[in-house]
Order: sequence, then C-alpha cells, then structure tokens
Amino acid sequence: MPTVKRDTYTPDSLLSVAVRVFNERGYDGTSMEHLSQAAGISKSSIYHHVRGKEELLRRGISRALDELFAVLEEPRAREGRAVERLEHVTRRTVEVLLAELPYVTLLLRVRGNTETEVWAMSRRREFDQRVAELVKQAAADGDLRSDVDARLATRLLFGMINSIAEWYRPERAAHPGGPGGPAPEAGGAGTSSAEVAEAVVRTAFAGLRTG
Amino acid sequence: MPTVKRDTYTPDSLLSVAVRVFNERGYDGTSMEHLSQAAGISKSSIYHHVRGKEELLRRGISRALDELFAVLEEPRAREGRAVERLEHVTRRTVEVLLAELPYVTLLLRVRGNTETEVWAMSRRREFDQRVAELVKQAAADGDLRSDVDARLATRLLFGMINSIAEWYRPERAAHPGGPGGPAPEAGGAGTSSAEVAEAVVRTAFAGLRTG
Repeated sequence: MPTVKRDTYTPDSLLSVAVRVFNERGYDGTSMEHLSQAAGISKSSIYHHVRGKEELLRRGISRALDELFAVLEEPRAREGRAVERLEHVTRRTVEVLLAELPYVTLLLRVRGNTETEVWAMSRRREFDQRVAELVKQAAADGDLRSDVDARLATRLLFGMINSIAEWYRPERAAHPGGPGGPAPEAGGAGTSSAEVAEAVVRTAFAGLRTG
Repeated sequence: MPTVKRDTYTPDSLLSVAVRVFNERGYDGTSMEHLSQAAGISKSSIYHHVRGKEELLRRGISRALDELFAVLEEPRAREGRAVERLEHVTRRTVEVLLAELPYVTLLLRVRGNTETEVWAMSRRREFDQRVAELVKQAAADGDLRSDVDARLATRLLFGMINSIAEWYRPERAAHPGGPGGPAPEAGGAGTSSAEVAEAVVRTAFAGLRTG
C-alpha cells in the first residue's frame, strides 16, 4: 500500500511528476491511479488540482510549446538575414529542448487521438512551418546550398535536434565525471546545453568535414 | 468475425505482416490474436510457422541488422580514408533504412526487456560503435572539424539518419505527384531513397550553409 503524504503540491510540482510518469509509461498507458501512486497523494487530491490527466497533458505540452514559440519572438529570430535568424532559432531550440527536456519529450512523443494531442500536433507543425519558412528565405538569399531541398533540409535539421531528447541526460551534464551510474554513452556525458547547441549549429550549417 | 483464409504464407510474407502490426501497436501491445487477425489465418497456423511472437520480432530485427552490418563489410566501407568510408557508410545506412523501412523502424523502436530486445539493443550499440570508430579515425586524420566532439558528432549523425524513419513514406516516393492522399509533408513527397541519402551526406559533412 503506497504511503499517502500530505498534499503540498503546487501546480508546477504536480505537473512535473505527471510528465515524468507520462514519459515513462506513455500517456495512454498512464491512469489516474498511476499518477496518484507516483505523487503519493490520493486521486481525489489530484482532482483538487486538475480535472483529469488530459489537463495535465495539455499543461505539460503548453509549457514546451510556449517556450519554443517564444524563441521565434526573440529579436535575433526576427531581425537580420534569414540564415542568421535560422541559426539563432536552431541554437535556442536545442537550448529549450534541453532546459525543458521532459516537457519537450512529451510534446515530441505525442501521437494520439485526444483533442489535446491533435492540438499539440497541429501546433508542432506550425512551429516546424515557421522554421521551414526561414529555411526557404535563407535558400532564396543564396545563403543555403541549393542542392538540398529546403523541405528536406528542415526535416533533417529537426531530426538532428529532436533526436537529442532520446539520449541527453541532464544529470550527467550537471555532474560531469561524477561517480556512479552506468558507463556514459557517446556524447552524453558532461556535455553542457550550450555545447550541444553549438555542435548542432556547426554540424548542420558548416558540416563536420574540414576544408 | 474475421475472415480466415487458407494459409499460403511464406516465412517472409508472414514476417512482413507481423512487423507491420508490431510497428502499429508496439511489440508489447501486440498479441498472437492481433497477428492472427492481421494475417487472416488462425493462431495455430501461425504457430505452424513460428514458436511465438518473440521469434517474429527476432527475425524482423535480424533482417534490419544483417543489412546494416553488411554495409560495414562493403569495400568502400573498408578501404580508403576514414572520412570517405564514413560518408559511404552514412549514405548506405540511409539507403538500407529506406529499403528496409519497417524492419529498421522496428529495430529503432526496441526498448523492452525480453531477451530478444536486449540482444537487439546491444547489436545496435555495436553498430553505432563501429561508426563512432570511423568518426574518431576521420577526426584523427584531420578530416573532421575538431571543435565538435567525435562522440557528439556520431550522436547527431545518427539522430539525423534515424529520424528519417519517422517521416519517410515510400509510397510517396513511388508515386511522386500522384493523386490522392493527404497533403504531402515537408521533404516527404516524391523524394527518392538516393536523394535523401545524398541530402544527409551533404548536410552532415558539408553543411547547409554556402560559402
């Protein structure tokens, strides 16, 4: 029988627990009972905070989307040559992904058919399209190579960025070289958010090859 | 009640159905009953071909792994400068991913705890490590930029490659500009396997930016 603790949750701290459980079990595989067990409070206590698990999903995804769309409003994303704006958006998107890793992971894994999931997928496409417009403008300016289709370039860029969610572990970055845990996997250990963002920008825009 | 047809399956055609169902429902979410319904033959007919669903998983994953490891044995993957071998392996890995899309997708989604899944993840790591060695050698030769960590570069390269499985739809490539279906998404429509492979090589090695 799980220990039931006094409900001292804030909206943010309860959301944090719920998003972790969604990412571990999948949204469809998560019940209010699972959330109750993970939070250590009763289901009725959770219903005191939210109407149900879909509201937690919506809040978790909103947090990721709000941060991502805010990047597009930053001055360096709005002013200057398209290719510079694109590089800024790429760098900042990686930084948001790493700073808000559980929330962006939740967004990236959305596949389902609830109203919230359909909305999330549509907002995610909207973000991708905003970036795709930058890619097209940069290509029209002659700043991107013309022998890679702009739509395909956008896909590959997001492929590289989004895949980071599959291997990046922030606790490694926080404790580089620290004791314990399994052997570090390639590129995961001791790599800061800014380093990963810079590596993505260099690789995607300048390429890995010298000369 | 599903129509039960005469069992005319070969090992390959039954595997093809099973892998499609695994990718749609997830391996854990797939029962022998689901496989029986999708194949239109009885469960006992399926047991005539295989001992159970884990054998189908193992065969599906083996098909992907055999093709991927075969790339590493090709002459252009074994002879010449490391950076050239790495580019060849990158191009051919994309081609194998697209030619064997359902099987490689199954491999990439493996997460679980059965013996077969643990084996698959270990073989996949082995493949990644073989490529990581090429990256390190190419960096040591001075052919890769030194300001992106080799392990991180390997991660980003595989991130770009593996993400293709999430959006590439072969039927679009087979019927470019054909009628019907939803509006094509970025980079997915009418793009051949060789075009995608070339775009990945150009982006990852030479970068998107001109000059």
